[in-house]
Amino acid sequence: MEQRTRTQSSRTRINASSGHVIGVDIGGSNLRVALADRKGTILGRWDASTKRTSSPEVVIKQIQRGVSQLLKQAAVPRSSLLAVAAGAPGITDRDAGVVFATSYLKGWKNVPLVRLLESALHLPAVVENDVKLAAIGENWIGSARDVRDFVFLAIGTGIAAGIFVNGELVHGPDWVAGEVGYMIVPGTSEAPAKRGAPGALERTIGGDGIRKDWLRACEGKRAISARDLTATGIFYHALAGNQHAKSVLEQSARILAYAVYNISAVLNSSLFVLGGGVGMSGPLLAATQRILESYTQPSRPKLVTSALGQDAQLIGAIRLALDKVESQIHL
Amino acid sequence: MEQRTRTQSSRTRINASSGHVIGVDIGGSNLRVALADRKGTILGRWDASTKRTSSPEVVIKQIQRGVSQLLKQAAVPRSSLLAVAAGAPGITDRDAGVVFATSYLKGWKNVPLVRLLESALHLPAVVENDVKLAAIGENWIGSARDVRDFVFLAIGTGIAAGIFVNGELVHGPDWVAGEVGYMIVPGTSEAPAKRGAPGALERTIGGDGIRKDWLRACEGKRAISARDLTATGIFYHALAGNQHAKSVLEQSARILAYAVYNISAVLNSSLFVLGGGVGMSGPLLAATQRILESYTQPSRPKLVTSALGQDAQLIGAIRLALDKVESQIHL
Repeated sequence: MEQRTRTQSSRTRINASSGHVIGVDIGGSNLRVALADRKGTILGRWDASTKRTSSPEVVIKQIQRGVSQLLKQAAVPRSSLLAVAAGAPGITDRDAGVVFATSYLKGWKNVPLVRLLESALHLPAVVENDVKLAAIGENWIGSARDVRDFVFLAIGTGIAAGIFVNGELVHGPDWVAGEVGYMIVPGTSEAPAKRGAPGALERTIGGDGIRKDWLRACEGKRAISARDLTATGIFYHALAGNQHAKSVLEQSARILAYAVYNISAVLNSSLFVLGGGVGMSGPLLAATQRILESYTQPSRPKLVTSALGQDAQLIGAIRLALDKVESQIHL
Repeated sequence: MEQRTRTQSSRTRINASSGHVIGVDIGGSNLRVALADRKGTILGRWDASTKRTSSPEVVIKQIQRGVSQLLKQAAVPRSSLLAVAAGAPGITDRDAGVVFATSYLKGWKNVPLVRLLESALHLPAVVENDVKLAAIGENWIGSARDVRDFVFLAIGTGIAAGIFVNGELVHGPDWVAGEVGYMIVPGTSEAPAKRGAPGALERTIGGDGIRKDWLRACEGKRAISARDLTATGIFYHALAGNQHAKSVLEQSARILAYAVYNISAVLNSSLFVLGGGVGMSGPLLAATQRILESYTQPSRPKLVTSALGQDAQLIGAIRLALDKVESQIHL
């Protein structure tokens, strides 16, 4: 009798527009958890560092703590939770719920993240690669709202893309679609990438590559005030008139333009949404856009920055958790 | 009363496995028409030249003649025909049934091919870009049978791809997905492509580009027996030990390898099917495969040659016509 009552009440709950979901963004340095209602409105957020506590078990414990705090703060009963979705910074098999590999978090290997989340939170769980989650977020309420063919291009320390084709996210048979940091274009290395090492494009216009370029440009030069800049800082230095910084910006923009142009030649994506610490840089977008203005054949992609910024992954996680709830209703 | 009988008989016919379809491959130099039964078995083929008769009206008249002859030869009544599908060598809007532009056939512009076919043959018609049709053919009974994520890469005078993602052909919002002849990789020009002119990759490793490379390599050299070779001839010359031909082959293979690698980094396509006069060359495939063996990250695409060869488009057209029939049954 108790069983029957529970089943009934659960069915009633999941069919209504009531209930809540949890979105999780597991990053290389930060863990972020959000509680949202069925409309996707965020009711609370919780952060923690993953710098020292990177094992899957510890991260799961952190997520549990975050969920408990969020429920308490928002005065939402635990029984109201319907699903959890989490993004991980690595190759992720969404069907199996496993993070195959990541170069962050001290290198997770074959972590059964869905199973860990489900048994810790007693909720249906789904996992996804973080950049693909960000693309889902931008497609939902960001810069690519309702756009069926677009590329979310994350440029930070790493470079990767979340690609939508015909309104659907592309994963590829080995779950590595969008690993565009490996692309080879004029100006990048042509050498094969080593296992676990960054690819050619990432080595050149990822954050570290741009900083190395800048240090090379500064070498033996006097009157360089700021050797210790981030990529974004270097680009603003270029805007301020520094010649070395200008050449670094121009070269980075040209290489990025070739990558965008090549992806666009393959997929005819109408829109590229730039995200990540380097990708959000205004001077880089402007310089890349300027170069692409000459490249009009066979089509001309539009470049914009991410509307959701650092929240893109977390918002994508909420959307994915809501989708999980929907899919259970329609089972 | 007559109307009712006709409608009924047509419904009966279209629901059964009986009936026939027409596949058409409109090429820059040849027009090919095939008659097939509902299983896709080709019952007859008909060819004509399009070199002098390139206007849409004349091509349509040629197709009419071909269809009449095929029906007669196979003793199939015209009333048994259920649909026609045609491929054109240019940017084709499958939904609208219009060929926007082609650099062949003296430059068709906005040709309403579906409307022309339907009014000439009194059959439901569908049109598609020829390289995308070839991909459909390879996916049906060729080298990519039942593969959900693959790229058919046609390399001849032109270069273009038919791309399947998640089991579906990619068209892009402007119908120019797969125009990979525009890709820019190390070894190609970096200059923007002019409207109507070939792209960087096509200029370098399309048939004409390879021949130019060869003529350059031959310049001022003695003991070169065969300046007037096709790309395929040059590649076999390389196999026979000619040093200049070897360097042309090696350079072409390297550039092709970068294009394949970049597409694979974007989409994680597991299989590349090479077609077209240059793409079908065994020495080119072997040399490209050899280079790609070092490029194992993030995934390693397999390269094969087209199983259907010059028939890929025509067979794709038959499959598309059969799909058109199916879609009408399920309307």
